[in-house]
Amino acid sequence: MSIAYFEGEFRPLTSVSIPVTDMALQRGVGVFDSLRTLGGKPLALGLHLDRLQLSLRDAGISEPVSRQEMEAVIREGIARMGEETSIRIYVTGGDRYEEGNFPAPRWFALFEPIHRLDRSATTQGVTLWPLPHERPLPLLKSINYMAAFVEKGLHPESFEVLYCPAGEITEATSSNAFMVIDGKILTAPLERVLSGVTRTFVLETAREAGYRVEERCPKVDELSRAAEFFITGSVKEIVPVVKVGTTRIGDGAPGPVTRHLIQLLSASLDRRVD
Amino acid sequence: MSIAYFEGEFRPLTSVSIPVTDMALQRGVGVFDSLRTLGGKPLALGLHLDRLQLSLRDAGISEPVSRQEMEAVIREGIARMGEETSIRIYVTGGDRYEEGNFPAPRWFALFEPIHRLDRSATTQGVTLWPLPHERPLPLLKSINYMAAFVEKGLHPESFEVLYCPAGEITEATSSNAFMVIDGKILTAPLERVLSGVTRTFVLETAREAGYRVEERCPKVDELSRAAEFFITGSVKEIVPVVKVGTTRIGDGAPGPVTRHLIQLLSASLDRRVD
Repeated sequence: MSIAYFEGEFRPLTSVSIPVTDMALQRGVGVFDSLRTLGGKPLALGLHLDRLQLSLRDAGISEPVSRQEMEAVIREGIARMGEETSIRIYVTGGDRYEEGNFPAPRWFALFEPIHRLDRSATTQGVTLWPLPHERPLPLLKSINYMAAFVEKGLHPESFEVLYCPAGEITEATSSNAFMVIDGKILTAPLERVLSGVTRTFVLETAREAGYRVEERCPKVDELSRAAEFFITGSVKEIVPVVKVGTTRIGDGAPGPVTRHLIQLLSASLDRRVD
Repeated sequence: MSIAYFEGEFRPLTSVSIPVTDMALQRGVGVFDSLRTLGGKPLALGLHLDRLQLSLRDAGISEPVSRQEMEAVIREGIARMGEETSIRIYVTGGDRYEEGNFPAPRWFALFEPIHRLDRSATTQGVTLWPLPHERPLPLLKSINYMAAFVEKGLHPESFEVLYCPAGEITEATSSNAFMVIDGKILTAPLERVLSGVTRTFVLETAREAGYRVEERCPKVDELSRAAEFFITGSVKEIVPVVKVGTTRIGDGAPGPVTRHLIQLLSASLDRRVD
């Protein structure tokens, strides 16, 4: 069963509610972070809590509890689940907005059994739909995903959308994006996108394996001559992309660099648990 | 006292909650509309319900109840309030996302005493802070306002933000935007912005009064030679803007066209009640 922690208690996930006075409901003010367990232990919990704290700071939302208290809740939730778990931690804007700050946030954590991706995504690759703008507040993980959902609805063949402001590829709906071109791996720099935890692991892994890596935005007009393309996320790990909009990537199948990185990442994950 | 309607009942507003399973909380999926009463009657209720229906259609969210039922709830809420009322109608994404659609939305309506603007906003004019991108999903009224709140927090002197993608002025946080320049009133066309109910009234009123009106985006680089600038909304009506970022508009005080339109709009509003 899925459970949630809210206001000091663990409860069945479907029994937890948030007041309509909360700015999260009225104006989409909220941040979150998402991680999972591996062998019953949280994967990169420290990095995810670091990132949540940065999202809160940049959003002007106060920290609802200490980091230690939040970490203890996460560990207890994982223990109560007793199986591989997906964890999402939300902090809402709460009911007050004062001088640019949200001083009275609410927070809750959701614990659910992991839904792993359909393996066909990894073996066959997926399609992304390009949008001509960037993700709202791209340096933090806000809950403002509605544009991505609506656009995906218009392009149901797409796995996620791909944000491409002014022809520069930044990130996908909830993934970092990587292009392999001219023997190099390109991905948007941290001044432009969310600091993905799996992005960090993939860049480390790729450099260790001797790949050349450049942190600059890949361009939409480079897609037609890109050899490979892939996206990364904490639950999805690495997913090959074989089409962006109507443009086929490489020969339309997951390429050797992507497959190699999938292997290397998978082999290194168990040393990332905290 | 403020009240809310949810799941068939009117209750104190602070006692209504929405489950954390709802996509509105998890991913900011929701639309709303906002109107007010004048003399105890809803102002342009028909136009607001039309617009809510368009927002729902464009978002792929099903209509939660019939328009007749929603209208009856609004009228009953107003009667229960017994004073001039601000009404906000929210429809959330609900718990399900299927093939681009949200087939099981929730909805609630909030009824609160009207908070009229501090009169100094109208008499002295306000400052807007320009952003280099557009509002998420600009043709519908989604709840994804977080970027505007965060940016306003960084520029606390600003009344709202002003969306200016690629140097073109589209709209403000929750207002339509108008520039008076070279004897003409400019405002973004409906292909680019939300169809503001007060925008419609102001354009009608301006044309009837003999002003020249052009529906095209005013440009950021026209600000320095604009004579006047103002924004409109259903509760704020018309608010003069005297500064955008660091650029003073005209002589830095509300101008004659804006003051004339404020007068004309105010005099015409009582024939807009339904």
